[in-house]
Amino acid sequence: MAGARLKDVAERAGVSIKTVSNVVRGEIRVAEQTRQRVLRAIAELDYQPNASARHLRTGRSGIIALAVPELVAPYFAELAAEVIAAAKKRGCTVLIEDTGGDPAEELRIACGLSDPLIDGVLLSPLSLDEAMLATRERRVPLVLLGEQSYRIPADHVLIDNSAAAQEATEHLLRLGRRRIGVIGQPSDRAHATTVQRMHGFLTALHAAGVPHDPRLAPDTVAFTRADGASAMRVLLGLDEPPDAVFCFSDLLASGAVRAAHEHGLRVPRDLAVVGFDDIQETGYSVPSLTTVSPNKREIAELAVDAVLQRITADAEAPHTRLTAGHSLVVRESTQPDSPPG
Amino acid sequence: MAGARLKDVAERAGVSIKTVSNVVRGEIRVAEQTRQRVLRAIAELDYQPNASARHLRTGRSGIIALAVPELVAPYFAELAAEVIAAAKKRGCTVLIEDTGGDPAEELRIACGLSDPLIDGVLLSPLSLDEAMLATRERRVPLVLLGEQSYRIPADHVLIDNSAAAQEATEHLLRLGRRRIGVIGQPSDRAHATTVQRMHGFLTALHAAGVPHDPRLAPDTVAFTRADGASAMRVLLGLDEPPDAVFCFSDLLASGAVRAAHEHGLRVPRDLAVVGFDDIQETGYSVPSLTTVSPNKREIAELAVDAVLQRITADAEAPHTRLTAGHSLVVRESTQPDSPPG
Repeated sequence: MAGARLKDVAERAGVSIKTVSNVVRGEIRVAEQTRQRVLRAIAELDYQPNASARHLRTGRSGIIALAVPELVAPYFAELAAEVIAAAKKRGCTVLIEDTGGDPAEELRIACGLSDPLIDGVLLSPLSLDEAMLATRERRVPLVLLGEQSYRIPADHVLIDNSAAAQEATEHLLRLGRRRIGVIGQPSDRAHATTVQRMHGFLTALHAAGVPHDPRLAPDTVAFTRADGASAMRVLLGLDEPPDAVFCFSDLLASGAVRAAHEHGLRVPRDLAVVGFDDIQETGYSVPSLTTVSPNKREIAELAVDAVLQRITADAEAPHTRLTAGHSLVVRESTQPDSPPG
Repeated sequence: MAGARLKDVAERAGVSIKTVSNVVRGEIRVAEQTRQRVLRAIAELDYQPNASARHLRTGRSGIIALAVPELVAPYFAELAAEVIAAAKKRGCTVLIEDTGGDPAEELRIACGLSDPLIDGVLLSPLSLDEAMLATRERRVPLVLLGEQSYRIPADHVLIDNSAAAQEATEHLLRLGRRRIGVIGQPSDRAHATTVQRMHGFLTALHAAGVPHDPRLAPDTVAFTRADGASAMRVLLGLDEPPDAVFCFSDLLASGAVRAAHEHGLRVPRDLAVVGFDDIQETGYSVPSLTTVSPNKREIAELAVDAVLQRITADAEAPHTRLTAGHSLVVRESTQPDSPPG
């Protein structure tokens, strides 16, 4: 019976809805005989997708948690949508947590403490404390998303950030741009992702024989629109401003385009811009944005498969590093023939 | 002891970390004496914020669920961020669910079946089945977000959509625009929010003595960028295209601006555009977008307070309808003196 409801189960079992609910919730004060009757009715009606009922039968809830630094960043919201879709195809539901990048929150979630029901955790950490994570109980399978410098035992899903950044920079070089700014270099500490992207950027410049001017890589605090706009203003204040800029996120690029616009520059004629993430707005913005597109669907499927593998099959298998694909999507912000933005 | 960890609790109680974890998770196979020792250590060390431990002490988990139709829509991601912040201030954590607008999912969550641990649910329904919702057990406190036509007993938090739409339309009329299109009218069925917004739009036109041309209100399926672009293309194909357009979401407006741009129109000179939601990108897009700004922080705080009131104080109090504020944020897309977009 597709779409069977609590009510149907209650009727079939000859008990109240409340009793079915008690059984489904694992309440212990239900008589064992009643409990068996309800479970039989649940099975007969194929009552589901109800995580709690499944939890009773298998000891697993079918719930996985996805924790990201901030859902307000469209990249993470879009990745979450892909994770939900991938999990659904595999019969699981996803609860999403927004850590705010707080190391204590990230640790709590990585330890499976945010919700005892969850079977596994996908975590995109911003500032997780490696030493603290090493002390975690390893009961809850954990998959880390994104480039990490952590050596803790967990599966990792990432893209080749260095190669992606190199391709983006080569694209700008092929357009004849030589004074290429880069926005997204953090001032405070090395972050694995930005280290990789910076490496790819410098590799491309070096291969083309173009020297890197460190003034073209202003410090940025976070990957936000506001940070992109301020970094762009710094670049536009240079004696020799850039003729192109590679931004480590589309939000940074959005801010950079805005600042260039307010400065009276035309994108791409005066300034070519490449972003990173391929968030949905990049196809609609004026001008539309050339960007590195990580294969979010592949990231999600690799991650969900990895955590399910740990949950259902082999919790002790060696940890793997899984690389999803990426591509450069060329749009108006680097096409001089496109209508002026 | 701030930031006490499982390890600290285990040391203090003289048991293994695994045992502490079992107690915290409510496993029943822990000896009662051991359980008491662990709970004492938890209390002495003020080990928290751990929902599970709190659940043991109070019967409440401190977890509330927020369910939205799609996190990929920035309005919902931004609202989620505000709900998380409001809940955090009040000592609660938030688990987020993306229903995809699926009525079965919405019902499951409204019934508290998605996770037995949660204390209460904030739900922004897209297509919740009223009859089915009426059958839900009312164990889990539920607050509905957004304009609803449901008569089911639950607190509602909303904004005055009719007044907001009227103000947006009056703004366009004051600019001298008379042929005002409207994007966001669904083809299939009346949705409470769009009914209210359409009402405000028509009220403003009527008060100004401007007749409404139904051809200026093309059908739209969803509130996405793609729908905004196609509706705009329909409007631009009219013998007398509009000189302004009011869009029921910023995503629709983003698509409309894009379509106008591809048609060679300048915003706002040829076409003034107003959106709805005040999502972050509207302040950075070129041109920046005039939009109705619902007070998301106030919506979040009203909703969290309402659900906590039900959880902790008076589950049987009469249900309330709470209205948050809104304002019109005027930006370049309706300011003819701004730089051309």
